[in-house]
Amino acid sequence: MGQPQAPEGAGTGATGVTGAAGAGTATAAPAAAGPSASRPPLRVGMVGYAFMGAAHSQGWRTAGRVFDLPLDPVLAVICGRDGDAVRTAAGRHGWAAAETDWRVLVARDDIDLVDICTPGDSHAEIALAALAAGKHVLCEKPLANTVAEAEAMTRAADAAALRGQLAMVGFNYRRVPATALARRMVAEGRLGRLRHVRVTYLQDWLVDPAAPLTWRLRKELAGSGALGDLGAHIVDLAQYLTGEHLAGVSALTETFVRQRPLPGGAAPGRPAAPGDGSTGEVTVDDAAVFTGRFPSGALASFEATRYATGRKNALRIEVNGEHGSLAFDLERLNELSYHDATEPGTHAGFRRILVTEPDHPYLDAWWPPGHGLGYEHTFVHQARDLVHAIAAGQAPEPSFADGLQVQRVLAAVEESAEKNAVYTAITP
Amino acid sequence: MGQPQAPEGAGTGATGVTGAAGAGTATAAPAAAGPSASRPPLRVGMVGYAFMGAAHSQGWRTAGRVFDLPLDPVLAVICGRDGDAVRTAAGRHGWAAAETDWRVLVARDDIDLVDICTPGDSHAEIALAALAAGKHVLCEKPLANTVAEAEAMTRAADAAALRGQLAMVGFNYRRVPATALARRMVAEGRLGRLRHVRVTYLQDWLVDPAAPLTWRLRKELAGSGALGDLGAHIVDLAQYLTGEHLAGVSALTETFVRQRPLPGGAAPGRPAAPGDGSTGEVTVDDAAVFTGRFPSGALASFEATRYATGRKNALRIEVNGEHGSLAFDLERLNELSYHDATEPGTHAGFRRILVTEPDHPYLDAWWPPGHGLGYEHTFVHQARDLVHAIAAGQAPEPSFADGLQVQRVLAAVEESAEKNAVYTAITP
Amino acid sequence: MGQPQAPEGAGTGATGVTGAAGAGTATAAPAAAGPSASRPPLRVGMVGYAFMGAAHSQGWRTAGRVFDLPLDPVLAVICGRDGDAVRTAAGRHGWAAAETDWRVLVARDDIDLVDICTPGDSHAEIALAALAAGKHVLCEKPLANTVAEAEAMTRAADAAALRGQLAMVGFNYRRVPATALARRMVAEGRLGRLRHVRVTYLQDWLVDPAAPLTWRLRKELAGSGALGDLGAHIVDLAQYLTGEHLAGVSALTETFVRQRPLPGGAAPGRPAAPGDGSTGEVTVDDAAVFTGRFPSGALASFEATRYATGRKNALRIEVNGEHGSLAFDLERLNELSYHDATEPGTHAGFRRILVTEPDHPYLDAWWPPGHGLGYEHTFVHQARDLVHAIAAGQAPEPSFADGLQVQRVLAAVEESAEKNAVYTAITP
Amino acid sequence: MGQPQAPEGAGTGATGVTGAAGAGTATAAPAAAGPSASRPPLRVGMVGYAFMGAAHSQGWRTAGRVFDLPLDPVLAVICGRDGDAVRTAAGRHGWAAAETDWRVLVARDDIDLVDICTPGDSHAEIALAALAAGKHVLCEKPLANTVAEAEAMTRAADAAALRGQLAMVGFNYRRVPATALARRMVAEGRLGRLRHVRVTYLQDWLVDPAAPLTWRLRKELAGSGALGDLGAHIVDLAQYLTGEHLAGVSALTETFVRQRPLPGGAAPGRPAAPGDGSTGEVTVDDAAVFTGRFPSGALASFEATRYATGRKNALRIEVNGEHGSLAFDLERLNELSYHDATEPGTHAGFRRILVTEPDHPYLDAWWPPGHGLGYEHTFVHQARDLVHAIAAGQAPEPSFADGLQVQRVLAAVEESAEKNAVYTAITP
Repeated sequence: MGQPQAPEGAGTGATGVTGAAGAGTATAAPAAAGPSASRPPLRVGMVGYAFMGAAHSQGWRTAGRVFDLPLDPVLAVICGRDGDAVRTAAGRHGWAAAETDWRVLVARDDIDLVDICTPGDSHAEIALAALAAGKHVLCEKPLANTVAEAEAMTRAADAAALRGQLAMVGFNYRRVPATALARRMVAEGRLGRLRHVRVTYLQDWLVDPAAPLTWRLRKELAGSGALGDLGAHIVDLAQYLTGEHLAGVSALTETFVRQRPLPGGAAPGRPAAPGDGSTGEVTVDDAAVFTGRFPSGALASFEATRYATGRKNALRIEVNGEHGSLAFDLERLNELSYHDATEPGTHAGFRRILVTEPDHPYLDAWWPPGHGLGYEHTFVHQARDLVHAIAAGQAPEPSFADGLQVQRVLAAVEESAEKNAVYTAITP
Repeated sequence: MGQPQAPEGAGTGATGVTGAAGAGTATAAPAAAGPSASRPPLRVGMVGYAFMGAAHSQGWRTAGRVFDLPLDPVLAVICGRDGDAVRTAAGRHGWAAAETDWRVLVARDDIDLVDICTPGDSHAEIALAALAAGKHVLCEKPLANTVAEAEAMTRAADAAALRGQLAMVGFNYRRVPATALARRMVAEGRLGRLRHVRVTYLQDWLVDPAAPLTWRLRKELAGSGALGDLGAHIVDLAQYLTGEHLAGVSALTETFVRQRPLPGGAAPGRPAAPGDGSTGEVTVDDAAVFTGRFPSGALASFEATRYATGRKNALRIEVNGEHGSLAFDLERLNELSYHDATEPGTHAGFRRILVTEPDHPYLDAWWPPGHGLGYEHTFVHQARDLVHAIAAGQAPEPSFADGLQVQRVLAAVEESAEKNAVYTAITP
Repeated sequence: MGQPQAPEGAGTGATGVTGAAGAGTATAAPAAAGPSASRPPLRVGMVGYAFMGAAHSQGWRTAGRVFDLPLDPVLAVICGRDGDAVRTAAGRHGWAAAETDWRVLVARDDIDLVDICTPGDSHAEIALAALAAGKHVLCEKPLANTVAEAEAMTRAADAAALRGQLAMVGFNYRRVPATALARRMVAEGRLGRLRHVRVTYLQDWLVDPAAPLTWRLRKELAGSGALGDLGAHIVDLAQYLTGEHLAGVSALTETFVRQRPLPGGAAPGRPAAPGDGSTGEVTVDDAAVFTGRFPSGALASFEATRYATGRKNALRIEVNGEHGSLAFDLERLNELSYHDATEPGTHAGFRRILVTEPDHPYLDAWWPPGHGLGYEHTFVHQARDLVHAIAAGQAPEPSFADGLQVQRVLAAVEESAEKNAVYTAITP
Repeated sequence: MGQPQAPEGAGTGATGVTGAAGAGTATAAPAAAGPSASRPPLRVGMVGYAFMGAAHSQGWRTAGRVFDLPLDPVLAVICGRDGDAVRTAAGRHGWAAAETDWRVLVARDDIDLVDICTPGDSHAEIALAALAAGKHVLCEKPLANTVAEAEAMTRAADAAALRGQLAMVGFNYRRVPATALARRMVAEGRLGRLRHVRVTYLQDWLVDPAAPLTWRLRKELAGSGALGDLGAHIVDLAQYLTGEHLAGVSALTETFVRQRPLPGGAAPGRPAAPGDGSTGEVTVDDAAVFTGRFPSGALASFEATRYATGRKNALRIEVNGEHGSLAFDLERLNELSYHDATEPGTHAGFRRILVTEPDHPYLDAWWPPGHGLGYEHTFVHQARDLVHAIAAGQAPEPSFADGLQVQRVLAAVEESAEKNAVYTAITP
């Protein structure tokens, strides 16, 4: 045991396990069917079971074990085309049933929410069908591969909202306690008028020119490269933290390695990539650097890349305001740096807040101070927030409209990059 | 989605969710009864449901969802004296049944393993009973409040081992990937002959003199203060990393605040603390600083305290060897610092290894590089390792004998502190 | 004494100060006239005596005390308009004589080198006159306020080079040991093909809207704002580290606070700023963010600002290459971060090289490892390098042509900013 | 130019170098004879010219160039046994004359202060002679090799003080701006009652067993090993920061490598080391770890070693008090970490104060914020403070009595180490 908090001490004492024996009798715990049998279920059907599917599964499974929820998330059905694989995934991740056709899943009466964890090219089709079928929808980011798709999804979500269905897009990094704290501090006015926002999302898994041409490197499947994958996160985060929408951007993009080996075998359900037999063309960006302006006048800079050698998951954001600054690095996700410029300079400096105190976002339900959380807990928090929204009938954030707005920024980035980096306004 | 790894890309492609519909049919996933119905269950009965109980629950619930396990951990019965509270805890944490008397739990036939998460004063009694009842045992650290108890427990564990029962003590910090990597590197000889080991475990939750006199501050319940709570961790970790047992120690201990307010109400099952009506005497150490020697000649220094203002969970360890050094800080648990002294000095320096690569301990089953883990995952790894040990019939580490050895070090620390810090050999 | 190096031990022993007395006799040290009377002097005349003048004085005074130089720098004449002030500065900084007219200084026969430490609007006039008068010239950065001036200066420097006169521009941050080491490592090919260069120079001294309208905020005197002051440094450093000239840029600039209070009194020799009586218009940029491309294909991003609250001198540079990465922060100027991607990922990570080893640039002449240098030592190193170049008759770097090239980048930044951030090629 | 401070802007404007020419005439600067001919000189005679001699030379030469001093330090005479070497050193470091016998130096009438930079075994003899000859004395640390010597020196200093002579010991790390700021903050009560002091001084230059047996490894010359060299610094610093004298200590020391190669040639004036012809015995400690108590009740831990692989100059100190904490690392000497526990925990954290603000100790005379200082500037500050003390006739700190007290702590450490680490009170 690492940290003895006072409440915990009392709690442990309350176990009374050293007391006299005798009266104890076995009790079928009401939790046998979930955290609380007295709470209505929220039956989830999830499409996709790879990396994101695993992460969402952890989120749905854990949320009700940690937080007091108004509804009990039930891992009802998982869906994927390959029957053997999806059944294995169901067993591994704890889903009660498996489907091999998302259309069947969407049509099931015993599903309340469809959670879309597939690549971006299928988001629109599944989401539209799920909304049409009366389901709530959680859709992984980016919302879609094109603005047109995202617009259609947003219209459908708006219409569904009138019927009481909710839709959310999975920008999970809003649910890191440190970023949520940062947003709270900006909203409280602690930074004053903002002057600068600089954000990077640096990874390095494409540095090796021999890395294969996966679906992520093909425009028709992935929509874009680092831009949609990493850039979407940082655009959303920058807009979330500032509470503003970008007014315009100027961008350069680059594909450093234009030919890559085809992967050993084409994935089931996907055609083999075109190519000269052994290599194929990379049709997405490897990196994007762009600058922008916020309506308030703040300048912004962005960089998304898969070629930042040695940087594994360096989503870094810094916001400078008239009265203070904040900085965050996803590689140290339990920390938030804060400079309070209203203090005398003599004792001022960037302080490292360990975002593990009970009054930090989400932390009242977790461990004692200093006992950090990990990446996967962003999905626990996402599940928690969505369950609360559904129970309350309130629109969750980020909405599909938020996802659409990010898509418009990405489109403006691509447009600017094609037009010699000229400053390109974001369509409102 | 934050990081698109090649295997993940392939995996996601494999979902085939965009393929033609039609053939899909609902399948009752084999996992309805757990990660795999084809694996035998390991039915766990856990005593205690406070902080440690919650952490162990996460461990048992998650281990089989992430790792391929030979047995399926089943959260069978949770036990605590207060019936309402334990039933609530069962629901919250996902235990199938609840008991209010640990003696009843231990006697149940449908339990394979007893997991002891109570304060130290009850460890020996429960563990001895569980071993006598034929169960495997996982016991939270410290193993016991006294060397005599720990000796009895170790004897019982040794005897039970002959009957095929296994016993492990819960020094979970061995299961941080970074510390496990550190151990591996030391064992590989990368540091050469060790010269220095310095370890601190710094917390600050007692800085306020108005903090109440909980059970942790009373010797009859907690055994000792910072020493047993935090010192046990760092002694175990130092011995684990070096692969050596301390030869002797010299110690100073201190109780900075000797009178504290009694808590609002005495905990059920525990007598109210003695005192003058409003305050009571702190009868354990607030802090301990000690030095020691390892048989190989390395010098060691230790510090355990609850008064290090601003340090929340600063378990820091540094090991210096002839060929290299390692450093770790639990507040940044996904990182290990490593200095390789066999490199030319021109380009040498402490490097920050992000311990999130697939070939790092435990990491092959987790997220892509840079997507960090948290505190609770040490309990997932602990469950994983114990399940493997039980399935293989091999003694797990740390054993009760390891726990006893730590207890002997703590006893020597206390003896030295009472004898003017004189160097006190550890009883082998 | 903090660090006992072996050579030093021997050296100290060599003092023999504990030996028998008697034979000792006073000796007029040959150094009375400088580090070595046997070396020819390099007589320096410096124009300007504020911040830069003080820094350069330290450089000239110290270089020969630390390094073996072929010429003895002599602080011969300091020049400034205000006679009392310049005489005080001469006394303070150790100059043998003072002048109040730089034209007189330039004409003196007993001066070998003119060191220009004035604001940018006078660089061209003084440098041209000094070169015409047959002097070597060291000119502070930025080389000039306009490209035209810089071109004239470069032409003059080229012509003077034929007469054996040398000219250098004072980009002192090339002389931080860590940046010089970084350049060496890039030139050795340790990073392989470069992919990304990201550089920021963040300060915060204009955050307060009540800060006065100094000469630095007026275009006619300062040329530009953060761009010329800070941006010039990072453009030069990026080009120096990569060994490439930027091909083009896309830029946004901003003036956050457009009216500021006039300073209490107009400075002597400078007209009062125009304004409404109490405030005046800021006519330079407060911040500039820009992106760019290097001919090799690497993407670059730049940010220069005086509004990054809490950042005091955060010149940060990171370079990512196919085989490794480097990172530097001027606020921790004795450190260089290096990631070697040719190592197995298991033990790889950004390492913190303390750039204080004897084989690091400039370090053979300084203190033992770990005993860091400071900001001012960049000027010592600059003096050292220039003295060597002059003695060898070899063109020093950075040359006026290098300074001109930076000026062209800055001009392209301004042009791009005026043209909606359109990508603007750098005139070769 | 990196940072344009408002005062600097004004100052630069004041150069008026762009004004009309004509009136300027050459002026022999009053500073030709030093920073100010109007200030009386302080004529320094320095004994020793190795590492410390070089550092002190920088200090004496620079102090009056940066600070307004009441006396002008004059580098009058440098002394060492080897005539050629000392004359070379005089030239290099800027001393006007050289002596080869410290007795002659001490007897010279034209010397006001004797600065002792020799190994510890000669400190007492030289200091006593210098005091007897009426000189002020600055003596490098440790004050002496034995308590008896230090007592004699302190008595002599006390007697000399009655004659107006001042004596100081050179614990230069008190003059790092960050440590001086830390002391100021403790003295202001910002930390409240102190609970913990932990200090390490980690170097690694003896890790290689093939490193030679220099004078520093021989007890008869060096007095002790890491203890006197590094331990003296951290004991002084701990006492300085807390404002308390240690009450007692418990210690372990170790000599890891007991035989080392003899250096190539015995140093002049020193007998060859005893040995078997090729190796000799190390007769000092390689490392010392000790704990202690302060009268206020705070616990302390110390570690001094030359075997901490990868640590070059890691003098680290952390102080935890009831209301806050401070931490410092000499490898990042421009920074001080501060945790203010009186703030709400929500936004609290260790902040990194860049100790480069004008109101930080010594900083009003240096560069703009963020432009860091280096190791050598501790000697500039030491010279500054001693000059002020001499001009004011006030006893400087640290006094010889302070040095004696440190010596008593070191003696108690050695006594404790010999007596099985038993707690050993410091003789008051």
